[in-house]
Amino acid sequence: SGTEPEDNAFTKRLPFLTEADQLKSVLRASRLMTSDRFENSAEHSWHIMLYAWVLSEHAGSEVRIDRVLQMLLLHDIVEIDAGDHPIHGQVDHAAQAAKEEAAAKRLFGLLPEIQRTAFADLWNEFEAAESVDARFAKAVDRFQTPIANLETGGGSWVDYNVTFAQIETRVRPAIETGAPRLWDWLRPQLIAYFLSAKAVSG
Amino acid sequence: SGTEPEDNAFTKRLPFLTEADQLKSVLRASRLMTSDRFENSAEHSWHIMLYAWVLSEHAGSEVRIDRVLQMLLLHDIVEIDAGDHPIHGQVDHAAQAAKEEAAAKRLFGLLPEIQRTAFADLWNEFEAAESVDARFAKAVDRFQTPIANLETGGGSWVDYNVTFAQIETRVRPAIETGAPRLWDWLRPQLIAYFLSAKAVSG
Ligand SMILES: [Ca+2]
Repeated sequence: SGTEPEDNAFTKRLPFLTEADQLKSVLRASRLMTSDRFENSAEHSWHIMLYAWVLSEHAGSEVRIDRVLQMLLLHDIVEIDAGDHPIHGQVDHAAQAAKEEAAAKRLFGLLPEIQRTAFADLWNEFEAAESVDARFAKAVDRFQTPIANLETGGGSWVDYNVTFAQIETRVRPAIETGAPRLWDWLRPQLIAYFLSAKAVSG
Repeated sequence: SGTEPEDNAFTKRLPFLTEADQLKSVLRASRLMTSDRFENSAEHSWHIMLYAWVLSEHAGSEVRIDRVLQMLLLHDIVEIDAGDHPIHGQVDHAAQAAKEEAAAKRLFGLLPEIQRTAFADLWNEFEAAESVDARFAKAVDRFQTPIANLETGGGSWVDYNVTFAQIETRVRPAIETGAPRLWDWLRPQLIAYFLSAKAVSG
């Protein structure tokens, strides 16, 4: 019957897993490196988990990569309700944060109590960006788009008319705080790109 | 200069991460639950990591979920060269296995030695399906499509004219071996679906 414990434990998890399918239809502002279509938030999440793992030697020694991967697996799921907010777009940050809070409550609320709490705690830890794990996860989340844009001649920087000053304000802090060696590597490449882009457009 | 150790360590990892972008363009035989387009292998990988984590209480107590997640993060990356082989399509299994071996060699070969070996070992462990972690990972990999097909009135089963006997041969063993409680839950639902599908088509 439906009250058999094992059935029940699984049946209670299915709505969350089904709902998660919708993250594949949330489109980001950035395009694939290897195709002209926009990236969705599910495949983005997969890719930055790979980034985090492959680049884990650039994390501080106290970073626990298994927790970082779990944070990145979950980090964008609120976009199912709240949408993606492009870092270089115009956005009301307070309104966006409220929408994401509500989304976290609804989506994690689909899970049984023990997982609901664990997932919500991990998502809140990521958002707060205070723990070493969350800081490295945030750095990696910020790192992928610049790499893709450098590889594709500008990408979303061109679409949004982004300047080097905006990168310094909106991208640098998270990367520099969570993965300073990645920032040291990235910065000269950004300077080279924005100098040449300015020369072309100006 | 380019031989500075930190630069070098990162620069040597970038080609692998860039190449991985192509997994977002490998299409599977199954469609999204919530849209009519075909699923790609990158977003599929993200989704089954979430399945594995959410369903981890159905894994044996000796399963290490962090290793399962790492296996699932990597498991399809060989499809960048070898393509997806639908479980219900016609395929030369020996030729496919040889293509995947070659793909693993090329792709993991883009990484520095220490990661190359670690990633190749993990991928081989998944393919061999002998360890408890690999068995649970394989079970979850097989589990997602039936769930999606049940949720969408047949999905790829309809496209490929799949029978219950084929499910018993091609899907059941991996799920029953790696996550027997998930098979116990799934089986009656499969029987109900295929009985009604038969009634409709016959
Ligand atoms: Ca994000």
